Amino acid sequence: MSPAKLKVGCAGLGRMGKRHALHFLERTPRAELVAATSPDEEELRWAKEHLEPFGVKLYKDYDEMLKQEGLQAVVIASATAVHAEQAIKAIEADKHVLCEKPISTNVEISQSVVDAAAKKPHLKVMCGFSRRFDASYRDAFEKMQSGLIGRPSVFRSQTCDKLDPTGFFVAYAEFSGGIFVDCSIHDIDLALWFFGQDAKIKSVSAVGITAVQPDLRKHNDRDNAVGLVEFYDGQIAYFYASRMMAAGQEDSTEIIGTQGKLTVNTQPASNLVNIYEPTGIRREIPQHYYDRFEHAFVTEANEFTTACLDNTPLPLDLNAAVRAVKIGCALQESLISGKKIFFDEAGNRVERATL
Amino acid sequence: MSPAKLKVGCAGLGRMGKRHALHFLERTPRAELVAATSPDEEELRWAKEHLEPFGVKLYKDYDEMLKQEGLQAVVIASATAVHAEQAIKAIEADKHVLCEKPISTNVEISQSVVDAAAKKPHLKVMCGFSRRFDASYRDAFEKMQSGLIGRPSVFRSQTCDKLDPTGFFVAYAEFSGGIFVDCSIHDIDLALWFFGQDAKIKSVSAVGITAVQPDLRKHNDRDNAVGLVEFYDGQIAYFYASRMMAAGQEDSTEIIGTQGKLTVNTQPASNLVNIYEPTGIRREIPQHYYDRFEHAFVTEANEFTTACLDNTPLPLDLNAAVRAVKIGCALQESLISGKKIFFDEAGNRVERATL
Amino acid sequence: MSPAKLKVGCAGLGRMGKRHALHFLERTPRAELVAATSPDEEELRWAKEHLEPFGVKLYKDYDEMLKQEGLQAVVIASATAVHAEQAIKAIEADKHVLCEKPISTNVEISQSVVDAAAKKPHLKVMCGFSRRFDASYRDAFEKMQSGLIGRPSVFRSQTCDKLDPTGFFVAYAEFSGGIFVDCSIHDIDLALWFFGQDAKIKSVSAVGITAVQPDLRKHNDRDNAVGLVEFYDGQIAYFYASRMMAAGQEDSTEIIGTQGKLTVNTQPASNLVNIYEPTGIRREIPQHYYDRFEHAFVTEANEFTTACLDNTPLPLDLNAAVRAVKIGCALQESLISGKKIFFDEAGNRVERATL
Amino acid sequence: MSPAKLKVGCAGLGRMGKRHALHFLERTPRAELVAATSPDEEELRWAKEHLEPFGVKLYKDYDEMLKQEGLQAVVIASATAVHAEQAIKAIEADKHVLCEKPISTNVEISQSVVDAAAKKPHLKVMCGFSRRFDASYRDAFEKMQSGLIGRPSVFRSQTCDKLDPTGFFVAYAEFSGGIFVDCSIHDIDLALWFFGQDAKIKSVSAVGITAVQPDLRKHNDRDNAVGLVEFYDGQIAYFYASRMMAAGQEDSTEIIGTQGKLTVNTQPASNLVNIYEPTGIRREIPQHYYDRFEHAFVTEANEFTTACLDNTPLPLDLNAAVRAVKIGCALQESLISGKKIFFDEAGNRVERATL
Repeated sequence: MSPAKLKVGCAGLGRMGKRHALHFLERTPRAELVAATSPDEEELRWAKEHLEPFGVKLYKDYDEMLKQEGLQAVVIASATAVHAEQAIKAIEADKHVLCEKPISTNVEISQSVVDAAAKKPHLKVMCGFSRRFDASYRDAFEKMQSGLIGRPSVFRSQTCDKLDPTGFFVAYAEFSGGIFVDCSIHDIDLALWFFGQDAKIKSVSAVGITAVQPDLRKHNDRDNAVGLVEFYDGQIAYFYASRMMAAGQEDSTEIIGTQGKLTVNTQPASNLVNIYEPTGIRREIPQHYYDRFEHAFVTEANEFTTACLDNTPLPLDLNAAVRAVKIGCALQESLISGKKIFFDEAGNRVERATL
Repeated sequence: MSPAKLKVGCAGLGRMGKRHALHFLERTPRAELVAATSPDEEELRWAKEHLEPFGVKLYKDYDEMLKQEGLQAVVIASATAVHAEQAIKAIEADKHVLCEKPISTNVEISQSVVDAAAKKPHLKVMCGFSRRFDASYRDAFEKMQSGLIGRPSVFRSQTCDKLDPTGFFVAYAEFSGGIFVDCSIHDIDLALWFFGQDAKIKSVSAVGITAVQPDLRKHNDRDNAVGLVEFYDGQIAYFYASRMMAAGQEDSTEIIGTQGKLTVNTQPASNLVNIYEPTGIRREIPQHYYDRFEHAFVTEANEFTTACLDNTPLPLDLNAAVRAVKIGCALQESLISGKKIFFDEAGNRVERATL
Repeated sequence: MSPAKLKVGCAGLGRMGKRHALHFLERTPRAELVAATSPDEEELRWAKEHLEPFGVKLYKDYDEMLKQEGLQAVVIASATAVHAEQAIKAIEADKHVLCEKPISTNVEISQSVVDAAAKKPHLKVMCGFSRRFDASYRDAFEKMQSGLIGRPSVFRSQTCDKLDPTGFFVAYAEFSGGIFVDCSIHDIDLALWFFGQDAKIKSVSAVGITAVQPDLRKHNDRDNAVGLVEFYDGQIAYFYASRMMAAGQEDSTEIIGTQGKLTVNTQPASNLVNIYEPTGIRREIPQHYYDRFEHAFVTEANEFTTACLDNTPLPLDLNAAVRAVKIGCALQESLISGKKIFFDEAGNRVERATL
Repeated sequence: MSPAKLKVGCAGLGRMGKRHALHFLERTPRAELVAATSPDEEELRWAKEHLEPFGVKLYKDYDEMLKQEGLQAVVIASATAVHAEQAIKAIEADKHVLCEKPISTNVEISQSVVDAAAKKPHLKVMCGFSRRFDASYRDAFEKMQSGLIGRPSVFRSQTCDKLDPTGFFVAYAEFSGGIFVDCSIHDIDLALWFFGQDAKIKSVSAVGITAVQPDLRKHNDRDNAVGLVEFYDGQIAYFYASRMMAAGQEDSTEIIGTQGKLTVNTQPASNLVNIYEPTGIRREIPQHYYDRFEHAFVTEANEFTTACLDNTPLPLDLNAAVRAVKIGCALQESLISGKKIFFDEAGNRVERATL
C-alpha cells in the first residue's frame, strides 16, 4: 500500500487559486487535492471540468468544505479581504493552512491569525511568500549564509509589473492595500529573510508618482513608488515598485555585503534564447510573476506538504509575515502623507528618532 | 472516478533509469509507474526503497516485466547495448516505447527498431532526444518556423561535458559508440529538427584530439572533436563535442538564417544569481546535462504519456533517430580515419562527391 | 600652415590633473598643452619628466601661469577647495575654463563662479561632469530624446567605489563634502540631464550607514547611503552611493519611462573577455572610475576645445552644476540629520511640503 | 625642444586608408603624418580638405611620395593587389612599413615581402592584424600565458560581417582572395598567436554555401564557410566566416584549454546600454569591424611608432602573416574543391596524411 497523502482543500479558484489547485492535484506527489471551494459560479464551472473528474469535491461554501471528512490542510487563495477569516476558521477546524500573501492588508488582523495559530502549535500555518521557495533566491541566501559576502548591509529589491493598459490595477487598488503592501511585500519579506526577521525598523520614508494611471490616486495609490527602510544595527533596505514596465515582470534583488554582493535576476530572461536581428540582440522576459515563479509555487506546495506530513518545521515563520505587513503599511502611509515615519527600538512609532 | 492513467514500466535503473522511474512515478500526472526492472542487485535495492512502497512491482528479468498485466508502455533506460533488443521485444508485446538515445550505436540495428515499429502503427515508439522537449529549444524552433530568421542555413551546436578526472569517460568509451555518437548525437538530432529531417547529407569530415585522456585512443575515441556536415540544398552544420569543460556542462546552439540568428544557451547559467567578489562577477553553470535538461525530461514523459493515452502524434519521428545515428557514425569514422566521407543524394556513400 | 590650436594650461597635477594634462598634450588634436602648475614638489617633478620635454612650461604658482602669454584656456584639476577661486581668477584673466567637478562643496561658492562667468559671456566655462561625455550615456540620452521610452519618470543611479582598505576615504571625507556631494553628484547631474535641468525639487531624504569605515562618522560621512529625490511634475530619482564594492567600480543607471526603460552599465565588464573556470564563468570589471570613463574624459577635452576654438555652445550648462551641488548638499544634510527636507516650487526650503 | 616624431606617409586613402591617415595625424602623439598618396581623384580631394591643412603633402604617385625628404615610415592601406609591391619598394627605400592585412592573397608574393624585409633587419616591417592590438584579445592572451586555462587545445573563431544587400561583397570577391583569405585570415592569425606561430598544420578542410549571394560563385567564393584546421601536436582550430549577419559585426573567439576556457566577444554589444521595450530587452552591436576595433587600430599605430622610434621589437612577426595566408589559401582551396588537404610535418602538401 502506498504511503498516505496529505488531503488538501483549496479555497478560492481565481487566477492563483486555479494554479494552487492544479499544483496540489498534479505536481505535489505526497498530497492529493480532495476539495475546492469558491463562491463564484464561473470558477466553479472551471472546477467542474478540471478538478471534479479527478475526485475533487466542490463547494460553494467555504465552511462546508472545512467539514469534509479527512481534510487535513487548506490552501487559501481567495480574495485578500477574507484570507485572515478563512485562515482562522481553518485553524479552529484543526487544519494546516497555506495562506496566500498577504495575510491581510491590516497589521492587527494579520496578527490575529498568528495568535490563532499560536494556540494550535501542532498545526502548520504558513504565509506563501513564493520567493522564499525560488531556487535562485535560495542559492543567494545560502551563499550569504556561508559568509561569501561578509555582513549583509544594504538590500535593494524591486517588484515591477508589466504595464497593463486595461486599467485593471486601478480597480484592484481599491482592495490591494496599495503598491507597497501588494508588490513590495515580497521585497520586504526578502529583506527580513536576508537581514534576519528580528531586524528592528528605525524609520521608513517613501515617495511615489502616478505616471500612467492617475486614477490610482482615488484609492490613495501610486503606479511607481520608492521606499527607504532604515534598521537599527546599521542596515538599510530600499524598494522600488512599479506597474508600468514595458518589457515584462522585473523582479530583481541585490544583497550588498561588506565583502561582496549577490544579485538575483538583474538580467531578466524568459529562457536561454537570444534573437539576433537587424535592430540588435534581443531576449524576451517573463510577462507575469507566475512566468517567473511557477517552480517556486510548486516547491512551496511540496514543502508545505512535507512539513504537514512529517511534522517538520516550516521554512518560514508566520511572525515574519506580520512584520512584513507592518513595514508595508508604514511605507504606504509615508507614500501618501509625504512624512518620514520613525520607530523606537521596541517597534513603537515615535515623533522623531534619536540618532 | 478519475480518468485512466497510462501504466508504465521502467527498464534499467541506473543513473537515468532512476530519474525516468521517478518522473513517471511523481511528475507525470496522467501516468503511473507500475513496474521496474534491472538485472543489477544494487539498483533493485534502490527500487525496493524508492519505488516499491508506491506500488511499483520490481523485476530482475525484463521479459517478466513485459508480461505484467495491464502494462501499457515501457521506458527503456538500460545500457545502450540492449536498447534495441528491449525495444523490439516491447513492441512485439504491444507496448508503447520511450527509448533513451541512442537506439543503438549501429545504424542497421537502429533501423531494425524502426522496422519493428512500422509493423505496429497503433503503438507510440519514440527515441528520447531530450532537447526536443526543452523550452528554450522549442521557443527557438517556433521563432524559426515563424520566419523570424529567414531560411536556416548554418547550424552550430556543441555538447560539452565537464571534465571528469576519474577516468569514467575512458571506461565508458568502450561502449558509447564514440564522442560523436554519444554526445553530438543530440546536436545532430537538433540539426535534423531545424533543417528538416529529410535534409540530405553530402559530406562529413571530422578531426579530434585527446587533450586530457590519451587512453581514449584505446577505444578509438577522442576527448575533443569537431565535425563538419554538408547537406545537399545549401546548408551546413558543424559540431563540437568535448569531455574537458572546466566550468560545467556547456551545451549551446546557434541557428543562423538568411535574415537573423537564434542562439540557445550561449551564455550558460545555473540560475539567476550573480556573485560580485574581488576577482570579478561570477555565475555558476549546470554541472551535468540533467541539471540543464531536467525539465525537458519531465516534459518528455508527459508528452509521451499524452500521445499514448490520446493516440495523438509523437513530437518526433523515429526515423530521425536512425538518421542521427547514421550521421554520428560517419563523423566518428571520419574522426578516426582522417578521411572526408561523401554521400550521393540517395544517401549512399560514394568515393568522391561531384560538386 | 596648420590651423591654430587652443593653448591650454593645467592647474593641479594630482591623480586627475596628470590625466587631464596628458589628455590635452596627447589626445586632443586641436589643443596644445602649454603650461601646467602645482604647488606640490613631487607633482612638479613628474611634470618635469613627462610634460616639460614637450614644451610645457611649469609653474609653482597658479597666478603666474595665468599670465603666460597666449594662454587661452585652463583646466582646473586641483583640490576641490580651490576650484572656485581658481576658476574665478581664470575667468577674470579672460581664459576659458574646464573645471573638475564639483565646482565647490558649497552652493553659494558654486554660484559665485556662475556669476563670474555670466559677466564674460564670450568665455566657455564648464564643469567637467565626465559622464555627460560617455558614449553609452549619450546613446541612452538620444534614445530617450527620440521618444523610445515615453516620458522619463523614475531615475535610479548609483556611484559605487571599490572598497579601499587603506582608509583613504576617511581622510578624504574631511574635504569631500560627503558621499552625496562627492559620489552622487554624478548621478544627480545625470538626473538633471535626463529630466531636464529645470526640474524642480520637492523633497529629499536620505539614510546611510558606516558598514566598513566607522571613522567616517568623525567627518559626518557614511560609506553607504541611499537618497530619494522627489520633483514637482511627477518624477522621482533615487541614488545609491557606496565605498565598499568588492568587485570594482559599479556605476550604473536606469531611466524608466512610461513606455520603456534604458539602462547603462547594469552588467559591468572591463572588456569582452569571459573566463570559464571550475568555479563558474567570470568577468572582470573596472577597478576605478577612470578605467570606466577614460574615453569620456578624452571626449570632454576635445569637445571643450572645439567649443572654445569655434565659439560653439558647450554641451552642458554651468547652472546645472550648481543645482547638482544644491541637491547633493541637501541629501548630505538629510543623511546626517535624519530629516526629510522639503522645497517649494521656487526652490526655497519649507518646513513641510503641501501635497 | 620636443622629442622627434616619426614621419609617416600613408599609401591609399580608401575607407581604411583615411582612417590610418587620421590615426597618424591625430591619435599617435609620437608620430606625424607628413605625406599621403592615392591614384584616386576623389580620395585626393578628401585629403586636400582633411590632411593638407595640417601640413600633409599629397601625391598622386606612390613612388614620388617615397622620395619625400625625411619620410621614415609608410603605412600601406591601398588595394590588396599592390600591398606587396608597395611594401617592397618602401623597404628598398629604407622605410619602416606597416602594411594592412593581407600582405597578398598569394603565399609566394607574401613571402617575397618577408624576404625583402630580411635584407634590412634595421627596418620595422609589420602586417597590421588589428586584433593583436585589441585590449580584450590581449587580456585573453595574457591570461592564457599565465596558465589560467592550462594548455590551449581547441580554438574556435569567427569573423562575420553584417549582411550588405548592395552586392558589394560580390564585386569585392573578385580580388579579395575569398572569404577565408579576406575574413578568416584574422582568426587564423589569432590561432597562430594563441597556439604559437610554429604550430604545424596537419590538415585543412572546409565547406561553404551561398545562402544570400549566389553570384559569389562566379568568383569561386561563398558567403558562409566553415573551416577545420588540424595541427600536429594535438591542437585543432575551427573557423566560421559569414557575410550575412543580421545584427552586425560578430567577431568572436573561444580558446579552450585543458583547465579552462577564455572567450572574447561571445556576447557582442556596442556599448553599455540596454533597451527594455515591449518586445523584450535589446542591445545594439557594432555594425562594422571598425566600430569594434577602432581602438585596436589606434594602438597599432602607436605601437608601430614606438618600435620604429625606439628600435624595439614589433609585437608581431612578419612570418606569421605569411603562414596565415598559407592556411587561408589552403582553406579556400578546400572550400572550392571539396577536398581535404594534408600536410607533412615539414609543411609540404601530401596526398594523404599518415595518422
